[in-house]
Amino acid sequence: MSEPAPVERAPIGPVLIVGAGLIGTSVGLALRHHGVEVHLADKNDANLAQAEALGAGVAAPPDRRELVVAAVPPDHLGETVVDALERYDDAYVTDVGSVKTAPLAYVRGSTADLSRYVGGHPMAGSERSGPAAAAANLFEGRAWAVTPHDQARPEAIQAVRALATACGASPVELHPEDHDAAVAEVSHLPHLMAVLAAARLVEAPHRHLSLSGQGLRDVTRVAAGDPSLWRQIVAANAGQLRGLLLAVRDDVDRLLEGLADPASPHVVDLLRKGAVGRELIPGKHGKPTPAQTIVYVAVPDRPGELARLFADAGQSGVNVEDLHIDHDPARPGGLVEIVVATSSAERLTTSLTAQGWSVHR
Amino acid sequence: MSEPAPVERAPIGPVLIVGAGLIGTSVGLALRHHGVEVHLADKNDANLAQAEALGAGVAAPPDRRELVVAAVPPDHLGETVVDALERYDDAYVTDVGSVKTAPLAYVRGSTADLSRYVGGHPMAGSERSGPAAAAANLFEGRAWAVTPHDQARPEAIQAVRALATACGASPVELHPEDHDAAVAEVSHLPHLMAVLAAARLVEAPHRHLSLSGQGLRDVTRVAAGDPSLWRQIVAANAGQLRGLLLAVRDDVDRLLEGLADPASPHVVDLLRKGAVGRELIPGKHGKPTPAQTIVYVAVPDRPGELARLFADAGQSGVNVEDLHIDHDPARPGGLVEIVVATSSAERLTTSLTAQGWSVHR
Repeated sequence: MSEPAPVERAPIGPVLIVGAGLIGTSVGLALRHHGVEVHLADKNDANLAQAEALGAGVAAPPDRRELVVAAVPPDHLGETVVDALERYDDAYVTDVGSVKTAPLAYVRGSTADLSRYVGGHPMAGSERSGPAAAAANLFEGRAWAVTPHDQARPEAIQAVRALATACGASPVELHPEDHDAAVAEVSHLPHLMAVLAAARLVEAPHRHLSLSGQGLRDVTRVAAGDPSLWRQIVAANAGQLRGLLLAVRDDVDRLLEGLADPASPHVVDLLRKGAVGRELIPGKHGKPTPAQTIVYVAVPDRPGELARLFADAGQSGVNVEDLHIDHDPARPGGLVEIVVATSSAERLTTSLTAQGWSVHR
Repeated sequence: MSEPAPVERAPIGPVLIVGAGLIGTSVGLALRHHGVEVHLADKNDANLAQAEALGAGVAAPPDRRELVVAAVPPDHLGETVVDALERYDDAYVTDVGSVKTAPLAYVRGSTADLSRYVGGHPMAGSERSGPAAAAANLFEGRAWAVTPHDQARPEAIQAVRALATACGASPVELHPEDHDAAVAEVSHLPHLMAVLAAARLVEAPHRHLSLSGQGLRDVTRVAAGDPSLWRQIVAANAGQLRGLLLAVRDDVDRLLEGLADPASPHVVDLLRKGAVGRELIPGKHGKPTPAQTIVYVAVPDRPGELARLFADAGQSGVNVEDLHIDHDPARPGGLVEIVVATSSAERLTTSLTAQGWSVHR
């Protein structure tokens, strides 16, 4: 593009967002926050009006657009991208879908100018949907996959990177196939494993669920996601998921063999492989997870106690890596699990104990 | 037993704990905390000496014992219970294993006095093991399954309930078969699903893991558990797990069919069933989960910020149901997810925003 270098308050030129749902409206809000000129389009007039009322942009076509963002459900991504490339021959086009090869193949199969399209995928979402659930800081601190292809113009790649950065996210560049393989492994297959575990609970007698603990809640949390959206994601990434699901079926068969034969190493082999895989997940800031320890603290179940706990924990100078609240099934009160570097656990335990908390590791 | 009613500081009589690992030593510490006379036994002299040094009890046989607690690994539970029943004909015997029909069947198959044995299972643990990882309050606020059988003496059941209560847990009575079916559904199968998801990461290229998010971390967290212990748990509950794993394999086959045929309802049907199952998990205090909303707050990654956040959140008077920290993959800083009742979300959001926090729902 021949526009001058972006000024500080408007890192990218006019942006047209097609699709005013949760993600599209959030992109609009984030860009408006940085002074970018944003225009909105949506087949659903109510969504469009609500997104405009929330301040996500103007519900009218722009005279000039630098970037079009396709923010429609996975089933409609390809056609939306092609339509934008054909309609606006002066614009770069990106999308925010969870799968990247399917829309790219659709564009390749069309007569549209492929060089102006580069896919994107912000690693953020919500179990809610629609413009009312949108937020300007939805992408703050998240990764935003940018997936160039061999014919992409460098300026198109740069425009998508600038979009991610303007939304507060960190661009991570990957080939489209590589992206889809990665999200199949780190997101789509884990989602299906959570669904498989949660689906079994439907047939369980209600009284069995009284033994539910934090492990079950963690394993199944993502299974609460919108089935209709996830059907589209799974369908769009069917190729990558098929290989992983065949490997899962082999593992299930080996588990069944192992259960039938106490001398078989199959069960412990898989348990060991799972423990190794879990260790490979990067910790915060992309660094390997350092040795961490959970410090458990009993906390009365009333407002203000968490504040008191974290004020006391803050005095110890220890950085909290993660935390959970695990509630007592039968009486008021809860256990807070504070995850800290193992090297800090002693200091936190000593400090909290001295301040009267019931603590253990 | 003919002992007088327990006094306040010693709710149960002398207890012998066989096995001074994480659970056995924690039971000893909890009971000593309530003034109960505790004796310890372990084939491993180093563990025994360490548990005694920690104050979990006396490493010598008692003159008289009201209750023997078998706290050995699953593979050795049955023989340890039978040995205790035969050696101490004046004592009730319980255990703390994750599976309850296997040790019961072992005792039934022996000539020992079955009426004095009632199984138990505290719903608490740690990814660590050994007496050094023990804590007096490990069971505080947790459920403790008590699993009587048809020949159990009421006094034996009462002794196990008293043990659970003295350790700070809430006794939950279930038949042994029912217990094993329940833990297969709410703990052992979900553990295996987490392991299946984590195992796939071993074959993933390292760069793919840069897209890892909180969903993956939650789904796979329990897969870090000790493979050797979990091999024994899985083996001891093989009967219950077999049926569930066959159902999982059927579901995987249906997913594969659904992936191959876009017109198939299999994928969306399973996603819907998973969402329903997830909703069935009870919330805190055993009540159904009320409608909850996640409020996201951006928090600088330095000590003291969480304390400030919870002090500010505490001022809103809103009760926090659960929380997570989700870290930025590429820069310092994190997102805190605060789970509150949906009816409280507006109040918390308004209050935190007014106090200068970057908040969205």
